[in-house]
Amino acid sequence: MTGDPLFKRIAFIGFGLIGSSLARAIKRDGPVAHIAVCARTAETRARALELGLADSTWETPAEAVEDADLVMVCTPMGAYEAVAAAMAPGLKAGAIVSDVGSVKEPVLRSLGGPLPEGVHLVPGHPIAGTEHSGPDAGFAELFEGRWAILTPGPDTDKAASDKVAELWRRTGSKVEFMDAAHHDRVLAITSHLPHLIAYSIVDTACDLETHLKGEVIKYSAGGFRDFTRIAASDPVMWRDIFLFNKDAVLDILGRFTEDLTALQRAIRRGEGDKLEEAFTRTRAIRRGVIDAKQD
Amino acid sequence: MTGDPLFKRIAFIGFGLIGSSLARAIKRDGPVAHIAVCARTAETRARALELGLADSTWETPAEAVEDADLVMVCTPMGAYEAVAAAMAPGLKAGAIVSDVGSVKEPVLRSLGGPLPEGVHLVPGHPIAGTEHSGPDAGFAELFEGRWAILTPGPDTDKAASDKVAELWRRTGSKVEFMDAAHHDRVLAITSHLPHLIAYSIVDTACDLETHLKGEVIKYSAGGFRDFTRIAASDPVMWRDIFLFNKDAVLDILGRFTEDLTALQRAIRRGEGDKLEEAFTRTRAIRRGVIDAKQD
Repeated sequence: MTGDPLFKRIAFIGFGLIGSSLARAIKRDGPVAHIAVCARTAETRARALELGLADSTWETPAEAVEDADLVMVCTPMGAYEAVAAAMAPGLKAGAIVSDVGSVKEPVLRSLGGPLPEGVHLVPGHPIAGTEHSGPDAGFAELFEGRWAILTPGPDTDKAASDKVAELWRRTGSKVEFMDAAHHDRVLAITSHLPHLIAYSIVDTACDLETHLKGEVIKYSAGGFRDFTRIAASDPVMWRDIFLFNKDAVLDILGRFTEDLTALQRAIRRGEGDKLEEAFTRTRAIRRGVIDAKQD
Repeated sequence: MTGDPLFKRIAFIGFGLIGSSLARAIKRDGPVAHIAVCARTAETRARALELGLADSTWETPAEAVEDADLVMVCTPMGAYEAVAAAMAPGLKAGAIVSDVGSVKEPVLRSLGGPLPEGVHLVPGHPIAGTEHSGPDAGFAELFEGRWAILTPGPDTDKAASDKVAELWRRTGSKVEFMDAAHHDRVLAITSHLPHLIAYSIVDTACDLETHLKGEVIKYSAGGFRDFTRIAASDPVMWRDIFLFNKDAVLDILGRFTEDLTALQRAIRRGEGDKLEEAFTRTRAIRRGVIDAKQD
Protein backbone atom coordinates (compact mmCIF):
# COMPACT_ATOMS: atom_id res chain seq x y z
CA MET A 1 0.00 0.00 0.00
CA THR A 2 1.22 3.45 -0.77
CA GLY A 3 -0.16 6.96 -0.50
CA ASP A 4 -2.44 8.71 1.99
CA PRO A 5 -4.56 6.74 4.40
CA LEU A 6 -7.88 6.00 2.76
CA PHE A 7 -9.43 5.44 6.14
CA LYS A 8 -8.47 6.99 9.45
CA ARG A 9 -9.78 4.07 11.43
CA ILE A 10 -10.45 0.54 10.26
CA ALA A 11 -12.18 -2.04 12.43
CA PHE A 12 -11.75 -5.74 11.78
CA ILE A 13 -14.47 -8.03 13.06
CA GLY A 14 -12.78 -11.42 13.07
CA PHE A 15 -9.05 -11.72 12.52
CA GLY A 16 -7.98 -14.91 10.77
CA LEU A 17 -5.94 -15.59 7.64
CA ILE A 18 -7.62 -12.97 5.45
CA GLY A 19 -8.14 -10.26 8.06
CA SER A 20 -4.60 -10.47 9.38
CA SER A 21 -3.16 -10.53 5.84
CA LEU A 22 -5.06 -7.37 4.95
CA ALA A 23 -3.90 -5.73 8.19
CA ARG A 24 -0.31 -6.69 7.36
CA ALA A 25 -0.60 -5.10 3.91
CA ILE A 26 -2.00 -1.92 5.48
CA LYS A 27 0.69 -1.77 8.16
CA ARG A 28 3.53 -2.64 5.78
CA ASP A 29 3.25 0.00 3.13
CA GLY A 30 0.58 2.46 4.01
CA PRO A 31 0.53 5.46 6.24
CA VAL A 32 -0.83 3.75 9.31
CA ALA A 33 -4.49 4.06 9.95
CA HIS A 34 -5.67 3.01 13.37
CA ILE A 35 -6.59 -0.65 13.23
CA ALA A 36 -9.15 -1.80 15.78
CA VAL A 37 -9.56 -5.55 16.07
CA CYS A 38 -12.54 -7.40 17.50
CA ALA A 39 -12.03 -11.11 18.00
CA ARG A 40 -14.03 -13.69 19.92
CA THR A 41 -11.11 -15.22 21.78
CA ALA A 42 -8.63 -13.49 24.10
CA GLU A 43 -5.88 -15.48 22.38
CA THR A 44 -6.57 -13.97 18.96
CA ARG A 45 -6.81 -10.45 20.44
CA ALA A 46 -3.46 -10.95 22.16
CA ARG A 47 -1.82 -12.24 18.95
CA ALA A 48 -3.17 -9.26 16.96
CA LEU A 49 -1.36 -6.95 19.39
CA GLU A 50 1.81 -9.05 19.62
CA LEU A 51 2.06 -9.21 15.82
CA GLY A 52 1.90 -5.41 15.74
CA LEU A 53 -1.20 -5.50 13.56
CA ALA A 54 -3.82 -4.13 15.95
CA ASP A 55 -3.63 -0.66 17.50
CA SER A 56 -6.49 -1.59 19.80
CA THR A 57 -8.49 -4.75 20.48
CA TRP A 58 -12.06 -5.16 21.60
CA GLU A 59 -14.33 -7.88 22.87
CA THR A 60 -17.55 -6.68 21.26
CA PRO A 61 -18.29 -5.49 17.71
CA ALA A 62 -20.16 -2.41 19.04
CA GLU A 63 -17.01 -1.15 20.82
CA ALA A 64 -14.66 -2.03 17.95
CA VAL A 65 -16.60 -0.18 15.26
CA GLU A 66 -16.91 3.07 17.21
CA ASP A 67 -15.65 5.96 15.09
CA ALA A 68 -14.48 3.51 12.34
CA ASP A 69 -14.65 4.76 8.73
CA LEU A 70 -14.44 1.20 7.47
CA VAL A 71 -15.58 -2.00 9.14
CA MET A 72 -14.18 -5.14 7.56
CA VAL A 73 -16.11 -8.24 8.60
CA CYS A 74 -13.80 -11.28 8.44
CA THR A 75 -15.74 -13.88 10.41
CA PRO A 76 -17.29 -17.07 9.00
CA MET A 77 -20.51 -16.12 7.20
CA GLY A 78 -22.67 -17.95 9.71
CA ALA A 79 -21.87 -15.19 12.22
CA TYR A 80 -22.83 -12.25 9.95
CA GLU A 81 -26.37 -11.66 11.23
CA ALA A 82 -25.24 -11.65 14.84
CA VAL A 83 -22.26 -9.42 14.01
CA ALA A 84 -24.46 -6.96 12.11
CA ALA A 85 -26.97 -6.73 14.94
CA ALA A 86 -24.21 -6.36 17.54
CA MET A 87 -22.32 -3.62 15.76
CA ALA A 88 -25.27 -1.61 14.44
CA PRO A 89 -25.57 0.63 17.54
CA GLY A 90 -21.87 1.56 17.39
CA LEU A 91 -21.63 2.50 13.71
CA LYS A 92 -21.22 6.17 12.88
CA ALA A 93 -23.12 7.83 10.03
CA GLY A 94 -21.22 7.52 6.75
CA ALA A 95 -19.29 4.43 7.85
CA ILE A 96 -18.63 1.77 5.24
CA VAL A 97 -19.21 -1.90 6.06
CA SER A 98 -17.46 -4.47 3.89
CA ASP A 99 -16.56 -8.14 4.20
CA VAL A 100 -14.37 -10.87 2.68
CA GLY A 101 -16.84 -13.78 2.56
CA SER A 102 -16.85 -16.28 -0.29
CA VAL A 103 -20.60 -16.05 -1.02
CA LYS A 104 -21.98 -12.61 -1.78
CA GLU A 105 -25.71 -12.66 -2.49
CA PRO A 106 -26.79 -13.57 1.07
CA VAL A 107 -24.54 -10.83 2.50
CA LEU A 108 -26.86 -8.11 1.21
CA ARG A 109 -29.48 -9.51 3.59
CA SER A 110 -27.51 -10.99 6.50
CA LEU A 111 -25.05 -8.15 6.94
CA GLY A 112 -27.05 -5.38 5.24
CA GLY A 113 -30.43 -6.00 6.85
CA PRO A 114 -29.63 -4.78 10.37
CA LEU A 115 -27.45 -1.80 9.34
CA PRO A 116 -28.72 1.70 10.22
CA GLU A 117 -29.50 4.43 7.64
CA GLY A 118 -26.46 6.28 6.33
CA VAL A 119 -24.11 3.29 6.55
CA HIS A 120 -22.76 2.00 3.21
CA LEU A 121 -22.58 -1.74 2.53
CA VAL A 122 -19.90 -2.80 0.03
CA PRO A 123 -19.58 -6.61 0.07
CA GLY A 124 -16.26 -7.91 -1.17
CA HIS A 125 -14.37 -11.11 -1.83
CA PRO A 126 -10.60 -11.38 -2.34
CA ILE A 127 -9.94 -14.52 -4.43
CA ALA A 128 -6.93 -15.50 -2.39
CA GLY A 129 -6.15 -17.80 0.47
CA THR A 130 -4.17 -20.76 1.66
CA GLU A 131 -5.14 -23.92 3.50
CA HIS A 132 -3.90 -22.36 6.76
CA SER A 133 -6.08 -20.54 9.27
CA GLY A 134 -5.72 -18.00 12.04
CA PRO A 135 -3.92 -14.67 12.55
CA ASP A 136 -0.44 -16.20 12.43
CA ALA A 137 -1.09 -17.69 8.97
CA GLY A 138 -1.49 -14.27 7.33
CA PHE A 139 1.08 -12.54 5.13
CA ALA A 140 1.09 -9.15 3.41
CA GLU A 141 1.65 -10.51 -0.12
CA LEU A 142 -1.39 -12.78 -0.13
CA PHE A 143 -3.42 -10.54 -2.43
CA GLU A 144 -0.75 -9.54 -4.95
CA GLY A 145 -1.86 -10.19 -8.52
CA ARG A 146 -5.12 -11.76 -7.33
CA TRP A 147 -8.65 -10.57 -7.95
CA ALA A 148 -10.83 -8.79 -5.43
CA ILE A 149 -14.49 -8.82 -6.43
CA LEU A 150 -16.88 -6.19 -5.04
CA THR A 151 -20.64 -6.67 -5.20
CA PRO A 152 -22.35 -3.48 -3.96
CA GLY A 153 -26.10 -3.23 -4.55
CA PRO A 154 -27.42 -0.89 -7.28
CA ASP A 155 -28.21 1.90 -4.80
CA THR A 156 -24.86 1.85 -3.01
CA ASP A 157 -22.95 5.13 -2.78
CA LYS A 158 -20.33 5.07 -5.55
CA ALA A 159 -17.74 6.97 -3.52
CA ALA A 160 -17.94 4.30 -0.80
CA SER A 161 -17.47 1.47 -3.32
CA ASP A 162 -14.54 3.27 -4.89
CA LYS A 163 -12.76 3.67 -1.55
CA VAL A 164 -13.04 -0.04 -0.81
CA ALA A 165 -11.82 -0.79 -4.35
CA GLU A 166 -8.83 1.49 -3.81
CA LEU A 167 -7.98 -0.27 -0.54
CA TRP A 168 -7.79 -3.61 -2.37
CA ARG A 169 -5.78 -2.13 -5.22
CA ARG A 170 -3.20 -0.92 -2.72
CA THR A 171 -2.72 -4.52 -1.54
CA GLY A 172 -1.74 -5.43 -5.09
CA SER A 173 -5.15 -6.85 -6.02
CA LYS A 174 -6.97 -6.34 -9.29
CA VAL A 175 -10.54 -5.20 -8.62
CA GLU A 176 -13.76 -6.16 -10.45
CA PHE A 177 -17.34 -5.12 -9.72
CA MET A 178 -19.92 -7.83 -10.21
CA ASP A 179 -23.53 -8.70 -9.56
CA ALA A 180 -23.66 -10.67 -6.29
CA ALA A 181 -25.70 -13.61 -7.64
CA HIS A 182 -23.43 -13.87 -10.67
CA HIS A 183 -20.37 -13.90 -8.40
CA ASP A 184 -21.86 -16.79 -6.48
CA ARG A 185 -22.45 -18.81 -9.65
CA VAL A 186 -18.90 -18.27 -10.92
CA LEU A 187 -17.32 -19.09 -7.56
CA ALA A 188 -19.47 -22.22 -7.21
CA ILE A 189 -17.51 -23.54 -10.18
CA THR A 190 -14.05 -22.12 -9.59
CA SER A 191 -13.83 -22.62 -5.86
CA HIS A 192 -16.76 -24.22 -4.05
CA LEU A 193 -17.12 -27.36 -6.19
CA PRO A 194 -13.34 -28.02 -6.23
CA HIS A 195 -13.28 -27.77 -2.44
CA LEU A 196 -16.29 -30.06 -2.05
CA ILE A 197 -14.69 -32.65 -4.31
CA ALA A 198 -11.36 -32.42 -2.52
CA TYR A 199 -13.06 -32.83 0.86
CA SER A 200 -15.00 -35.77 -0.53
CA ILE A 201 -12.04 -37.69 -1.97
CA VAL A 202 -10.00 -37.19 1.18
CA ASP A 203 -13.03 -38.31 3.18
CA THR A 204 -13.16 -41.46 1.05
CA ALA A 205 -9.53 -42.12 1.97
CA CYS A 206 -10.37 -41.59 5.67
CA ASP A 207 -12.72 -44.58 5.51
CA LEU A 208 -10.09 -46.99 4.19
CA GLU A 209 -8.73 -49.67 6.47
CA THR A 210 -5.74 -48.43 8.48
CA HIS A 211 -3.06 -50.29 6.52
CA LEU A 212 -4.26 -49.03 3.14
CA LYS A 213 -4.71 -45.48 4.49
CA GLY A 214 -1.07 -45.45 5.53
CA GLU A 215 -0.02 -46.38 2.02
CA VAL A 216 -2.31 -43.78 0.48
CA ILE A 217 -0.52 -41.13 2.54
CA LYS A 218 2.89 -42.59 1.72
CA TYR A 219 2.29 -42.56 -2.04
CA SER A 220 0.22 -39.38 -2.15
CA ALA A 221 2.57 -37.59 -4.55
CA GLY A 222 0.70 -39.09 -7.50
CA GLY A 223 -2.10 -36.51 -7.34
CA PHE A 224 -3.85 -37.14 -4.02
CA ARG A 225 -1.63 -34.77 -2.01
CA ASP A 226 -2.96 -31.75 -3.97
CA PHE A 227 -6.44 -32.67 -2.80
CA THR A 228 -5.31 -33.04 0.81
CA ARG A 229 -4.00 -29.48 0.72
CA ILE A 230 -7.33 -28.10 -0.49
CA ALA A 231 -9.20 -30.32 1.97
CA ALA A 232 -7.20 -28.91 4.89
CA SER A 233 -9.00 -25.55 4.63
CA ASP A 234 -10.99 -24.17 7.54
CA PRO A 235 -13.98 -26.48 8.25
CA VAL A 236 -16.33 -23.82 9.70
CA MET A 237 -15.69 -21.35 6.90
CA TRP A 238 -16.38 -24.02 4.29
CA ARG A 239 -19.43 -25.36 6.09
CA ASP A 240 -20.92 -21.86 5.82
CA ILE A 241 -19.96 -21.46 2.16
CA PHE A 242 -21.89 -24.58 1.20
CA LEU A 243 -24.88 -23.64 3.32
CA PHE A 244 -25.02 -20.09 1.93
CA ASN A 245 -24.35 -20.96 -1.73
CA LYS A 246 -26.46 -24.11 -1.71
CA ASP A 247 -28.38 -23.60 -4.96
CA ALA A 248 -25.41 -22.70 -7.17
CA VAL A 249 -23.27 -25.49 -5.66
CA LEU A 250 -25.97 -28.14 -6.11
CA ASP A 251 -26.51 -27.02 -9.70
CA ILE A 252 -22.86 -27.29 -10.75
CA LEU A 253 -22.44 -30.46 -8.69
CA GLY A 254 -25.25 -32.02 -10.74
CA ARG A 255 -23.45 -31.19 -13.97
CA PHE A 256 -20.16 -32.53 -12.60
CA THR A 257 -21.78 -35.81 -11.54
CA GLU A 258 -23.22 -36.25 -15.05
CA ASP A 259 -19.80 -35.75 -16.62
CA LEU A 260 -18.10 -38.06 -14.13
CA THR A 261 -20.72 -40.73 -14.79
CA ALA A 262 -20.05 -40.46 -18.53
CA LEU A 263 -16.33 -41.02 -17.92
CA GLN A 264 -17.13 -43.90 -15.59
CA ARG A 265 -19.23 -45.55 -18.31
CA ALA A 266 -16.45 -45.05 -20.87
CA ILE A 267 -14.00 -46.79 -18.51
CA ARG A 268 -16.39 -49.66 -17.84
CA ARG A 269 -17.02 -50.15 -21.57
CA GLY A 270 -13.35 -49.75 -22.49
CA GLU A 271 -14.09 -46.76 -24.77
CA GLY A 272 -10.56 -45.38 -25.02
CA ASP A 273 -11.41 -42.91 -27.78
CA LYS A 274 -13.98 -41.15 -25.58
CA LEU A 275 -11.53 -40.92 -22.69
CA GLU A 276 -8.74 -39.58 -24.86
CA GLU A 277 -11.08 -37.00 -26.43
CA ALA A 278 -12.23 -35.74 -23.03
CA PHE A 279 -8.66 -35.63 -21.66
CA THR A 280 -7.48 -33.67 -24.72
CA ARG A 281 -10.32 -31.14 -24.49
CA THR A 282 -9.38 -30.21 -20.93
CA ARG A 283 -5.89 -29.04 -21.95
CA ALA A 284 -7.34 -25.92 -23.61
CA ILE A 285 -8.67 -24.73 -20.25
CA ARG A 286 -5.22 -25.12 -18.68
CA ARG A 287 -3.72 -22.98 -21.43
CA GLY A 288 -6.37 -20.36 -20.66
CA VAL A 289 -5.43 -20.38 -16.97
CA ILE A 290 -1.74 -19.96 -17.82
CA ASP A 291 -2.49 -17.18 -20.31
CA ALA A 292 -4.60 -15.42 -17.67
CA LYS A 293 -1.57 -15.58 -15.32
CA GLN A 294 -3.63 -17.35 -12.64
CA ASP A 295 -1.37 -20.43 -12.52
CA MET B 1 23.79 -41.00 -9.60
CA THR B 2 27.22 -41.88 -8.32
CA GLY B 3 29.48 -44.87 -8.50
CA ASP B 4 30.17 -47.46 -11.17
CA PRO B 5 27.83 -47.96 -14.07
CA LEU B 6 25.23 -50.50 -13.07
CA PHE B 7 24.54 -51.21 -16.71
CA LYS B 8 26.91 -50.90 -19.65
CA ARG B 9 24.13 -50.25 -22.10
CA ILE B 10 20.61 -49.06 -21.39
CA ALA B 11 17.92 -48.94 -24.06
CA PHE B 12 14.93 -46.64 -23.69
CA ILE B 13 11.82 -47.60 -25.65
CA GLY B 14 9.83 -44.36 -25.72
CA PHE B 15 11.41 -41.13 -24.54
CA GLY B 16 8.99 -38.68 -22.96
CA LEU B 17 8.92 -36.91 -19.59
CA ILE B 18 9.87 -39.94 -17.49
CA GLY B 19 12.34 -41.56 -19.88
CA SER B 20 14.22 -38.35 -20.58
CA SER B 21 14.29 -37.47 -16.86
CA LEU B 22 15.81 -40.82 -16.01
CA ALA B 23 18.35 -40.42 -18.83
CA ARG B 24 19.26 -36.97 -17.49
CA ALA B 25 19.84 -38.40 -14.01
CA ILE B 26 22.06 -41.12 -15.48
CA LYS B 27 24.05 -38.68 -17.65
CA ARG B 28 24.35 -36.05 -14.91
CA ASP B 29 26.01 -37.92 -12.12
CA GLY B 30 26.88 -41.41 -13.20
CA PRO B 31 29.78 -42.80 -15.14
CA VAL B 32 28.14 -42.75 -18.54
CA ALA B 33 26.59 -45.96 -19.73
CA HIS B 34 25.69 -46.07 -23.40
CA ILE B 35 22.12 -44.91 -23.76
CA ALA B 36 20.27 -46.21 -26.81
CA VAL B 37 16.95 -44.50 -27.50
CA CYS B 38 14.12 -45.88 -29.60
CA ALA B 39 11.34 -43.42 -30.37
CA ARG B 40 8.47 -43.54 -32.83
CA THR B 41 9.03 -40.08 -34.31
CA ALA B 42 12.17 -38.72 -35.98
CA GLU B 43 11.61 -35.50 -34.04
CA THR B 44 11.94 -37.23 -30.65
CA ARG B 45 15.01 -39.16 -31.82
CA ALA B 46 16.62 -35.93 -32.97
CA ARG B 47 15.83 -34.18 -29.66
CA ALA B 48 17.28 -37.07 -27.66
CA LEU B 49 20.58 -36.55 -29.50
CA GLU B 50 20.47 -32.74 -29.37
CA LEU B 51 19.81 -32.81 -25.63
CA GLY B 52 22.91 -35.01 -25.23
CA LEU B 53 20.87 -37.75 -23.62
CA ALA B 54 21.11 -40.46 -26.29
CA ASP B 55 24.37 -42.00 -27.46
CA SER B 56 22.51 -43.70 -30.29
CA THR B 57 18.94 -43.60 -31.60
CA TRP B 58 16.95 -46.30 -33.34
CA GLU B 59 13.71 -46.61 -35.24
CA THR B 60 12.80 -50.12 -34.09
CA PRO B 61 12.81 -51.72 -30.63
CA ALA B 62 14.66 -54.80 -31.96
CA GLU B 63 17.63 -52.65 -33.04
CA ALA B 64 17.62 -50.49 -29.92
CA VAL B 65 17.71 -53.37 -27.43
CA GLU B 66 20.62 -55.19 -29.09
CA ASP B 67 23.30 -55.86 -26.48
CA ALA B 68 21.39 -53.84 -23.85
CA ASP B 69 21.73 -54.96 -20.22
CA LEU B 70 18.63 -53.01 -19.27
CA VAL B 71 15.64 -52.11 -21.42
CA MET B 72 13.45 -49.41 -19.91
CA VAL B 73 10.03 -49.28 -21.58
CA CYS B 74 8.63 -45.73 -21.31
CA THR B 75 5.78 -45.77 -23.84
CA PRO B 76 2.07 -45.50 -23.03
CA MET B 77 0.90 -48.88 -21.72
CA GLY B 78 -1.32 -49.48 -24.73
CA ALA B 79 1.84 -50.04 -26.78
CA TYR B 80 3.42 -52.63 -24.44
CA GLU B 81 2.33 -55.78 -26.25
CA ALA B 82 3.54 -54.52 -29.60
CA VAL B 83 6.79 -53.28 -28.06
CA ALA B 84 7.43 -56.63 -26.33
CA ALA B 85 6.80 -58.58 -29.52
CA ALA B 86 8.99 -56.22 -31.56
CA MET B 87 11.96 -56.26 -29.22
CA ALA B 88 11.90 -59.96 -28.26
CA PRO B 89 14.17 -61.10 -31.12
CA GLY B 90 16.81 -58.50 -30.26
CA LEU B 91 17.11 -59.16 -26.51
CA LYS B 92 20.24 -60.85 -25.28
CA ALA B 93 20.16 -63.60 -22.66
CA GLY B 94 20.31 -62.15 -19.14
CA ALA B 95 18.91 -58.78 -20.18
CA ILE B 96 16.55 -57.04 -17.75
CA VAL B 97 13.32 -55.49 -19.02
CA SER B 98 11.68 -52.86 -16.83
CA ASP B 99 9.10 -50.11 -17.34
CA VAL B 100 7.69 -46.98 -15.72
CA GLY B 101 3.96 -47.48 -16.32
CA SER B 102 1.36 -46.45 -13.75
CA VAL B 103 -0.50 -49.79 -13.65
CA LYS B 104 1.53 -52.86 -12.82
CA GLU B 105 -0.54 -56.05 -12.77
CA PRO B 106 -1.25 -56.12 -16.56
CA VAL B 107 2.45 -55.56 -17.31
CA LEU B 108 3.32 -59.06 -16.18
CA ARG B 109 1.20 -60.31 -19.11
CA SER B 110 1.49 -57.57 -21.77
CA LEU B 111 5.21 -56.99 -21.49
CA GLY B 112 6.21 -60.31 -19.90
CA GLY B 113 4.23 -62.66 -22.15
CA PRO B 114 6.30 -62.35 -25.34
CA LEU B 115 9.72 -62.17 -23.65
CA PRO B 116 12.18 -65.01 -24.39
CA GLU B 117 13.61 -67.37 -21.73
CA GLY B 118 16.49 -65.94 -19.74
CA VAL B 119 15.25 -62.35 -19.84
CA HIS B 120 14.29 -60.84 -16.46
CA LEU B 121 11.11 -58.76 -16.12
CA VAL B 122 11.17 -56.19 -13.29
CA PRO B 123 8.15 -53.89 -13.67
CA GLY B 124 8.55 -50.50 -12.00
CA HIS B 125 6.70 -47.27 -11.32
CA PRO B 126 8.33 -44.02 -10.20
CA ILE B 127 5.69 -41.99 -8.33
CA ALA B 128 6.77 -38.75 -9.89
CA GLY B 129 5.73 -36.58 -12.80
CA THR B 130 4.46 -33.21 -13.90
CA GLU B 131 1.63 -32.14 -16.17
CA HIS B 132 4.13 -31.64 -19.02
CA SER B 133 4.97 -34.22 -21.69
CA GLY B 134 7.78 -35.00 -24.13
CA PRO B 135 11.58 -35.23 -23.95
CA ASP B 136 12.07 -31.50 -23.38
CA ALA B 137 9.88 -31.58 -20.26
CA GLY B 138 12.25 -33.90 -18.39
CA PHE B 139 14.66 -32.90 -15.61
CA ALA B 140 17.21 -34.85 -13.63
CA GLU B 141 15.77 -34.00 -10.19
CA LEU B 142 12.28 -35.33 -10.92
CA PHE B 143 12.72 -38.46 -8.80
CA GLU B 144 14.51 -37.00 -5.79
CA GLY B 145 12.79 -37.92 -2.53
CA ARG B 146 9.99 -39.70 -4.39
CA TRP B 147 9.05 -43.37 -4.29
CA ALA B 148 9.86 -45.90 -6.97
CA ILE B 149 7.79 -49.06 -6.62
CA LEU B 150 8.99 -52.33 -8.14
CA THR B 151 6.64 -55.25 -8.67
CA PRO B 152 8.64 -58.27 -9.88
CA GLY B 153 6.82 -61.60 -9.93
CA PRO B 154 7.63 -64.22 -7.24
CA ASP B 155 10.00 -66.13 -9.54
CA THR B 156 12.01 -63.15 -10.73
CA ASP B 157 15.78 -63.24 -10.30
CA LYS B 158 16.60 -61.27 -7.15
CA ALA B 159 19.87 -59.92 -8.51
CA ALA B 160 18.00 -58.42 -11.47
CA SER B 161 15.43 -56.74 -9.19
CA ASP B 162 18.19 -55.39 -6.96
CA LYS B 163 20.02 -53.81 -9.90
CA VAL B 164 16.87 -51.98 -11.03
CA ALA B 165 16.27 -50.90 -7.43
CA GLU B 166 19.81 -49.54 -7.22
CA LEU B 167 19.33 -47.57 -10.46
CA TRP B 168 16.31 -45.83 -8.94
CA ARG B 169 18.10 -45.21 -5.64
CA ARG B 170 20.87 -43.44 -7.54
CA THR B 171 18.29 -41.00 -8.99
CA GLY B 172 17.42 -40.03 -5.42
CA SER B 173 14.31 -42.21 -5.21
CA LYS B 174 13.25 -44.33 -2.29
CA VAL B 175 12.47 -47.87 -3.44
CA GLU B 176 9.71 -50.25 -2.30
CA PHE B 177 8.85 -53.73 -3.53
CA MET B 178 5.16 -54.51 -3.75
CA ASP B 179 2.68 -57.00 -5.10
CA ALA B 180 1.52 -55.76 -8.51
CA ALA B 181 -2.23 -56.01 -7.83
CA HIS B 182 -1.81 -54.26 -4.48
CA HIS B 183 0.14 -51.45 -6.18
CA ASP B 184 -2.73 -50.97 -8.62
CA ARG B 185 -5.26 -50.70 -5.80
CA VAL B 186 -3.19 -48.13 -3.87
CA LEU B 187 -2.49 -46.05 -6.97
CA ALA B 188 -6.15 -46.14 -8.00
CA ILE B 189 -6.78 -44.07 -4.86
CA THR B 190 -3.68 -41.87 -4.70
CA SER B 191 -3.36 -41.07 -8.38
CA HIS B 192 -5.91 -42.49 -10.81
CA LEU B 193 -9.08 -41.31 -9.06
CA PRO B 194 -7.67 -37.79 -8.45
CA HIS B 195 -6.79 -37.51 -12.12
CA LEU B 196 -10.19 -38.77 -13.24
CA ILE B 197 -11.93 -36.26 -11.00
CA ALA B 198 -9.71 -33.41 -12.16
CA TYR B 199 -10.35 -34.29 -15.80
CA SER B 200 -14.05 -34.45 -15.05
CA ILE B 201 -14.38 -31.09 -13.32
CA VAL B 202 -12.36 -29.34 -16.01
CA ASP B 203 -14.51 -31.11 -18.59
CA THR B 204 -17.59 -29.73 -16.83
CA ALA B 205 -16.11 -26.24 -17.17
CA CYS B 206 -15.47 -26.88 -20.88
CA ASP B 207 -19.20 -27.25 -21.43
CA LEU B 208 -20.11 -23.89 -19.90
CA GLU B 209 -21.26 -21.09 -22.17
CA THR B 210 -18.32 -19.05 -23.50
CA HIS B 211 -18.85 -16.01 -21.28
CA LEU B 212 -19.00 -18.02 -18.08
CA LYS B 213 -16.03 -20.17 -19.13
CA GLY B 214 -13.92 -17.02 -19.52
CA GLU B 215 -14.78 -15.98 -15.98
CA VAL B 216 -14.04 -19.43 -14.62
CA ILE B 217 -10.54 -19.16 -16.08
CA LYS B 218 -10.14 -15.60 -14.83
CA TYR B 219 -11.07 -16.45 -11.25
CA SER B 220 -9.50 -19.92 -11.18
CA ALA B 221 -7.20 -19.13 -8.24
CA GLY B 222 -9.94 -20.16 -5.81
CA GLY B 223 -9.17 -23.89 -6.24
CA PHE B 224 -10.04 -24.71 -9.83
CA ARG B 225 -6.57 -23.95 -11.19
CA ASP B 226 -5.07 -26.86 -9.20
CA PHE B 227 -7.43 -29.18 -11.05
CA THR B 228 -6.54 -27.68 -14.45
CA ARG B 229 -2.89 -28.49 -13.78
CA ILE B 230 -3.66 -32.14 -13.04
CA ALA B 231 -6.06 -32.30 -16.01
CA ALA B 232 -3.34 -31.09 -18.39
CA SER B 233 -1.50 -34.42 -18.11
CA ASP B 234 -0.87 -36.54 -21.20
CA PRO B 235 -4.22 -37.77 -22.61
CA VAL B 236 -2.97 -41.01 -24.19
CA MET B 237 -1.04 -42.07 -21.11
CA TRP B 238 -4.07 -41.48 -18.92
CA ARG B 239 -6.48 -43.15 -21.34
CA ASP B 240 -4.35 -46.30 -20.99
CA ILE B 241 -4.15 -46.04 -17.21
CA PHE B 242 -7.94 -46.09 -16.89
CA LEU B 243 -8.32 -48.90 -19.39
CA PHE B 244 -5.66 -51.05 -17.72
CA ASN B 245 -6.69 -50.37 -14.10
CA LYS B 246 -10.41 -50.45 -14.79
CA ASP B 247 -11.53 -52.65 -11.87
CA ALA B 248 -9.63 -50.85 -9.12
CA VAL B 249 -10.60 -47.43 -10.48
CA LEU B 250 -14.29 -48.31 -10.77
CA ASP B 251 -14.25 -49.70 -7.23
CA ILE B 252 -12.78 -46.59 -5.60
CA LEU B 253 -14.87 -44.34 -7.85
CA GLY B 254 -17.97 -46.06 -6.49
CA ARG B 255 -16.90 -45.31 -2.92
CA PHE B 256 -16.10 -41.70 -3.82
CA THR B 257 -19.50 -41.20 -5.45
CA GLU B 258 -21.22 -42.49 -2.31
CA ASP B 259 -19.29 -40.06 -0.13
CA LEU B 260 -19.93 -37.14 -2.49
CA THR B 261 -23.64 -37.97 -2.55
CA ALA B 262 -23.70 -37.91 1.26
CA LEU B 263 -22.14 -34.43 1.26
CA GLN B 264 -24.58 -33.33 -1.46
CA ARG B 265 -27.50 -34.47 0.69
CA ALA B 266 -26.10 -32.65 3.73
CA ILE B 267 -25.89 -29.45 1.68
CA ARG B 268 -29.43 -29.86 0.33
CA ARG B 269 -30.80 -30.47 3.83
CA GLY B 270 -28.74 -27.71 5.40
CA GLU B 271 -27.02 -30.13 7.79
CA GLY B 272 -24.09 -27.93 8.77
CA ASP B 273 -22.92 -30.23 11.57
CA LYS B 274 -22.40 -33.13 9.15
CA LEU B 275 -20.43 -30.92 6.77
CA GLU B 276 -18.23 -29.50 9.51
CA GLU B 277 -17.57 -32.98 10.89
CA ALA B 278 -16.49 -34.31 7.47
CA PHE B 279 -14.32 -31.26 6.77
CA THR B 280 -12.62 -31.61 10.15
CA ARG B 281 -11.92 -35.32 9.68
CA THR B 282 -10.03 -34.70 6.43
CA ARG B 283 -7.44 -32.52 8.16
CA ALA B 284 -5.86 -35.55 9.83
CA ILE B 285 -4.97 -36.98 6.42
CA ARG B 286 -3.26 -33.74 5.44
CA ARG B 287 -1.16 -33.87 8.61
CA GLY B 288 -0.18 -37.42 7.63
CA VAL B 289 0.93 -36.27 4.18
CA ILE B 290 3.03 -33.48 5.68
CA ASP B 291 4.54 -35.83 8.28
CA ALA B 292 5.39 -38.29 5.49
CA LYS B 293 7.23 -35.46 3.70
CA GLN B 294 5.16 -35.96 0.54
CA ASP B 295 3.72 -32.42 0.51
